[in-house]
Formats: sequence, C-alpha cells, structure tokens
Amino acid sequence: MHRLFCDAPLVMGERAVVSSDDLHHVKNVLRMKDGETLALVDPTGATAMGTIDTKDGFCIRCGEVSPSAAQEAGGNITLYMGLAKGDKFDFVVQKAVELGASRIVPVAFARSVVKITAKDEEKKCTRWNKIAREAAMQSGRLFLPEVTRPMSVAQVCADIEGMHTLVAYELEKNCSIADGLASVPTDAPLGLIVGPEGGIEEREVEAFCASGAVSISLGSRIMRCETAPIALLSVAQFVRGGMDARKEEV
Amino acid sequence: MHRLFCDAPLVMGERAVVSSDDLHHVKNVLRMKDGETLALVDPTGATAMGTIDTKDGFCIRCGEVSPSAAQEAGGNITLYMGLAKGDKFDFVVQKAVELGASRIVPVAFARSVVKITAKDEEKKCTRWNKIAREAAMQSGRLFLPEVTRPMSVAQVCADIEGMHTLVAYELEKNCSIADGLASVPTDAPLGLIVGPEGGIEEREVEAFCASGAVSISLGSRIMRCETAPIALLSVAQFVRGGMDARKEEV
Repeated sequence: MHRLFCDAPLVMGERAVVSSDDLHHVKNVLRMKDGETLALVDPTGATAMGTIDTKDGFCIRCGEVSPSAAQEAGGNITLYMGLAKGDKFDFVVQKAVELGASRIVPVAFARSVVKITAKDEEKKCTRWNKIAREAAMQSGRLFLPEVTRPMSVAQVCADIEGMHTLVAYELEKNCSIADGLASVPTDAPLGLIVGPEGGIEEREVEAFCASGAVSISLGSRIMRCETAPIALLSVAQFVRGGMDARKEEV
Repeated sequence: MHRLFCDAPLVMGERAVVSSDDLHHVKNVLRMKDGETLALVDPTGATAMGTIDTKDGFCIRCGEVSPSAAQEAGGNITLYMGLAKGDKFDFVVQKAVELGASRIVPVAFARSVVKITAKDEEKKCTRWNKIAREAAMQSGRLFLPEVTRPMSVAQVCADIEGMHTLVAYELEKNCSIADGLASVPTDAPLGLIVGPEGGIEEREVEAFCASGAVSISLGSRIMRCETAPIALLSVAQFVRGGMDARKEEV
C-alpha cells in the first residue's frame, strides 16, 4: 500500500495535512479515486488509513488513528556527518535514509571546507529534508527521518550526552567497529559520527570521547568521506538486526 | 610510502612497467628525484622496492622481487553487478574498490536497461578499470582490483561454480545476510550478486542457485541498485574481518 508522510498530527475524520507535492502525486500520478485508501504516518509516528474524498475538492480523509507502534528493524540511529563539498552531503542524506538512519545532523568541523551561512541554512535544510522525504518514500521507511540544522562540535557533544555514540577516527588503531558496537545494546539509540574530507581533528575526537563517545577504526583501507557513513551505517544496521526483514514490527 | 600498480611482472634490475600517467605523477607531481624509493606491486601481487633512476631518462628501477605475500583483510571478494543507468556503474566501481572488492564483473541481466554493444565494451572497460585504479591508489589497496568484460547470466553461472556466492534478491524472505554469510568460511573466496534497477528475474535467481549460490534478503527497506552492493560489501567485509585493521598482513 502507498504510504504518505503527513506534516501534522493525524486527527480522525479530518483532512490529512500533506504537502502539495504529495497531494499532486496522489491525484495526478497515482490517479487515486474517491473511496480509495492509502496509509498515513504523522510526525509522531501515529498511523491511520486515509481515504480519498472528492466531495468537497480532492483531499485525504483520516480514519481511526493508532498511536505509534511500528518499530523499524535496527532502531534509532542518528548520523552526525561532517559538512562536505559539492553534492556529497545530498548523497549521504539519500543513502543514510535508505539504510535506516532516523536523524541526520550536519556538523561543522574545524576541517569542513564548506561553511554554511545563516542565510543558506534554511535553504540547505529544506533541500536535505526534501531528499530525505523522497528517499523515505522510495525505500519504504515507516518513519520520516529528519535532517536537523547544522551543529557545531560543542553542540554535538551536548546532543550525544547519555547516548551510545561511535566516532570513526582514522588514527584509531585499537578499537574496531565490532568492539565499538559490542558495548551498545542493540535496541538502544545509537549515534554515529563521521568527519568531513579532511578528517576529524584530535581535539574534536577528544571532545566527543569526553562526552561518552567511543573512537573506532573502519579498517586499513582509506574510505572517502561519503563512503564511510554508508559503510558504518550498513554494519551498524546489520549488527542491530536492521537488515533482517524478520525483525521488523509493523 | 607511495605505492604504484605496475602493468607487467616485476623483474629485478629492469625498469618497472608503469602507465605514462603514473610515471608523470611520480616525476611531475610527487617530484621524486634520483635515488628516491617507492613500493611497486605487479599484476601477480609480487612486490619490490623501486628506485628512481635518471641516468638514462626518468625511470623506476626494480629492486629485489618478493612473491605475493601480502593479504588484504576480508580476502577475495568478487562483485557481480548488474549494468545500471547513467553513472551508477562508475559509482559502484569506485565504492566497491574502496570497500575491498578484488574483482568486479558487470552483468547483463534481462532487466538491465543499459545494453553494451561490442563496440562500446572496450571503451567502457577501460574507463571502469581507470576508476578502479584511481580508487585503489586513493584508498591504499594492496592489490589492483580488476573490472572484467561484461558477462551474461549464463557466464556468471559458470564463473561462480565451486565458489561461495550470495545473490541479493528482494523476494527472498527467509534467508538473511547473516544466514548467508554464516555458511561461508571467512577466508574462502566469496561472490556477491546484485541486480540492476528493475531487479533480478526469478529464473535468473534460480539459475544462480542451481550453480550453488544462496539467495539472501537485505531487509525490509528497499535499496537503490547502487546502494545494495555497497551495503552488502560493507557487511561482508565486516563479518570477514575486512574492517579490522589488526587483521591485515602486509
């Protein structure tokens, strides 16, 4: 069944609040008719059946609402990703959503060549959330992942307090991904930190570790900055059961 | 130390056979001088120290040759990848090399929209091997992975005979990646088969399985055709120790 991500909480009997792009898609691409149904998910994760209603203009009428119950295999993963050049960040957003990230946080590291001005921030975030939404629909995600505003290293340190977090660090030689993941319960929220093209500075890694993060190695091959988050997310999902369809509860 | 992939077997005392691009790089970018040394690897995996020799024109003189001894963590993995649209195949070649694939085989599936004519084949293969070489140098690979000529499904069936092979199939519901990898000794050569945009047809999967392949699921999220091989390779490397720098023998 087709699934739509709504922009406001679902209320039984009311019109579902969906973007005009999505409404256009349902009406003119899927060509759904009066009485046909689709699945609705709201920002809280609550779900409902939606029914096309054309009596008073084309809309989607919300049925009985079920509180958030679905659980995606692999659980809650936040990817903290260094701002990167060109369309690399776009690429990482798309792939991270396909691989089940719940939340993507752009991070301004000391070595991030790309600087985002306050003026650009709004535009960039809108663009990244649009990519995330498209990838979520295409890959059949149960929830819509969020791309947050960019954070500084200090803000990330505050954000990861109390969360199990791994930071990929190329100078780490002793702790493997397996070691790092072994200390995290598979259903606990997980943070993954990956740096920009130039890597993460030692003092930044130290700051994350002081906030409870564990520094890990991705092995002896050097990955590009856009490859590292994909590899790390793939492995984390695998270890947490997120690549096993039998572990998903819908 | 800088590492060059040579095009012919190394012979002690002779000039190393390297591409003109690589020689240009050593001479004009790295600006190496008479007597300076670098590491050489030949197509058999044999290694030698090379010394810059400018007495009779700029060349790299080969030192004592050691037979292939180095072993990359993760071992021997062949990726059989469906021909895909646009620059997706280029992208997969680059990422697969970063993630340690030893050999990449383009496959013409029934649903491959892209068809390669005999005329194009030479040009495409040259291009893909150039991408593989650049990625191998950039990521610090010990061996130069090969991109072969495209194969048909029947040719792949012959190629995987006797090899442990997993085929990612979206209609597979019972066997996870973990199940599939559990049956493969971590040091045995491994084949991974991933289809094109439209997926693999059932009869194609049946043909692979009749040749000994095991059909696996990548989970309930739908990955794009270029994401699946990256996720699958990442997980396979992880399980085989290929993301643990401590397991590499140089």
